[in-house]
Amino acid sequence: MKEKFVAYIRALQNTITSELEKIDGKALFREDLWDRPEGGGGRTRVIENGSVFEKGGVNISEVHGILPESMQQYFGVTDANFFACGLSLVLHPVNPYVPTVHANWRYFELYDSNGTLVDQWFGGGQDLTPYYLFEEDAIHFHKVCKKACDVHSSDFYSEFKKKCDSYFYNAHREEARGIGGLFFDYLKNTESFSIEAWYDFVTEVGDSFLEAYLPIVQKRKNISFQKAQKNWQEIRRGRYVEFNLVHDKGTLFGLKTNGRIESILMSLPPHVQWHYDYHPEINSEEEKLVKILRSPIDWIK
Amino acid sequence: MKEKFVAYIRALQNTITSELEKIDGKALFREDLWDRPEGGGGRTRVIENGSVFEKGGVNISEVHGILPESMQQYFGVTDANFFACGLSLVLHPVNPYVPTVHANWRYFELYDSNGTLVDQWFGGGQDLTPYYLFEEDAIHFHKVCKKACDVHSSDFYSEFKKKCDSYFYNAHREEARGIGGLFFDYLKNTESFSIEAWYDFVTEVGDSFLEAYLPIVQKRKNISFQKAQKNWQEIRRGRYVEFNLVHDKGTLFGLKTNGRIESILMSLPPHVQWHYDYHPEINSEEEKLVKILRSPIDWIK
Repeated sequence: MKEKFVAYIRALQNTITSELEKIDGKALFREDLWDRPEGGGGRTRVIENGSVFEKGGVNISEVHGILPESMQQYFGVTDANFFACGLSLVLHPVNPYVPTVHANWRYFELYDSNGTLVDQWFGGGQDLTPYYLFEEDAIHFHKVCKKACDVHSSDFYSEFKKKCDSYFYNAHREEARGIGGLFFDYLKNTESFSIEAWYDFVTEVGDSFLEAYLPIVQKRKNISFQKAQKNWQEIRRGRYVEFNLVHDKGTLFGLKTNGRIESILMSLPPHVQWHYDYHPEINSEEEKLVKILRSPIDWIK
Repeated sequence: MKEKFVAYIRALQNTITSELEKIDGKALFREDLWDRPEGGGGRTRVIENGSVFEKGGVNISEVHGILPESMQQYFGVTDANFFACGLSLVLHPVNPYVPTVHANWRYFELYDSNGTLVDQWFGGGQDLTPYYLFEEDAIHFHKVCKKACDVHSSDFYSEFKKKCDSYFYNAHREEARGIGGLFFDYLKNTESFSIEAWYDFVTEVGDSFLEAYLPIVQKRKNISFQKAQKNWQEIRRGRYVEFNLVHDKGTLFGLKTNGRIESILMSLPPHVQWHYDYHPEINSEEEKLVKILRSPIDWIK
């Protein structure tokens, strides 16, 4: 399963970065190969100052070794070894009318001190963070998510959509980071779903990513905008930073397993603003977005 | 002691904000009074878009009530009540040659469920975060810190300077947030120092703040700068955000005790940048700063 999923994310990284370069039309991804001293490494690909993407990364990594003490506590084990691999992407567009997107598909194995496999699971998801809300875009994104889920179980979309809403939540702001999508974790071998069945599900979601996101980029990337919309985007990006640094378990995992800092923090937006006690104008498009982030919506009725 | 220290920080907030307004010459502090639903409240004063200060806050708060569960664990107590008050300030100047400064002086009381005082302590400090290093400024700041410490004990400066270096440290970047100053916590009643003696010490430090910072502002605020220096300042501010959101216990305490979010996060800089894997030019002034942040210096030999 390790080899199979690693091969999958390598190929998916190639597909995604080449499609994103096509739609950007100006910037190319820069590639950094890196090694983790304790075992493993990764292939980081970053795009900056594009015509569509102001900053973004599409990274894969495979790391393994002794499970750091802080993570042992987290998983409730002692003296464990681990293997983790995944693809993680974040795209911050130039145009405030194009949403930021995040996706991650990962696979984890846990071994005892003799190297015997004791646990294995998949995790991941994909979610959208608009600065201005086009309901049809939110519906499109969720429909593609649902289609991928429905191939495997009619329960998955509603279950993983709910998990996404509750995970990507800035509790200290009492608002969602974005308009959601899918989030799942600890997808383990059970009577009804083997680890191979979860592989099929997770790769189905991975394969749906471009279909979920690219049409939205295509539709919104040339809408003209002013400094006011750019400021709003940069203020909202502040919330993105707050989520990733205060709440995100993926970032925490990376920092605690001595991951490559620049690859972990490539998720942070290029230009960000924080103003004191900022509130958008009543009845503005900006306020409409904030209201929706305060109570998650069922985009597919 | 509660009343005495609250009176002190109220007066100090007035002194500091009025001196800062004088040196800014353009912007005035905006005041927000707020109540904490569970008990207490605060007086937040924020300055934005000044000629000297791009954003800054000088806040006081007094909060009390049942100690939240997450903080009970932290302090190793159960069923406790608490009282906390303090002044907290952060100033982000416009000019990249003027350092950012942070200071905090606070007092804490812990009670059992019958309301009997079981513990009390002072904490706080002040520290400087330059974007360009003027050694004479660092020496000046530390000399004023040392002078305030020396009145109370010849050991304090070196002890609290070391604590500051180790506390304001971005472990994930392997670099200090700034060039330090003083940091102290859990200053409790002992045979050699009564809580009153600690009050005298903490207020001595509080009283030294303007002397430590204002001469530096005065000297550097009119140095001309270009877009390149401003970009560097905004990139370094990213490290400031990382420290405050990932490592800072004060921010964590605020978020966990349902503090006023806008007052807690007023510490975040107004405009911030994150670039992928950014490194300053070899032998530049920017690189000189980074090298110094990687190994703390004894500014007073």
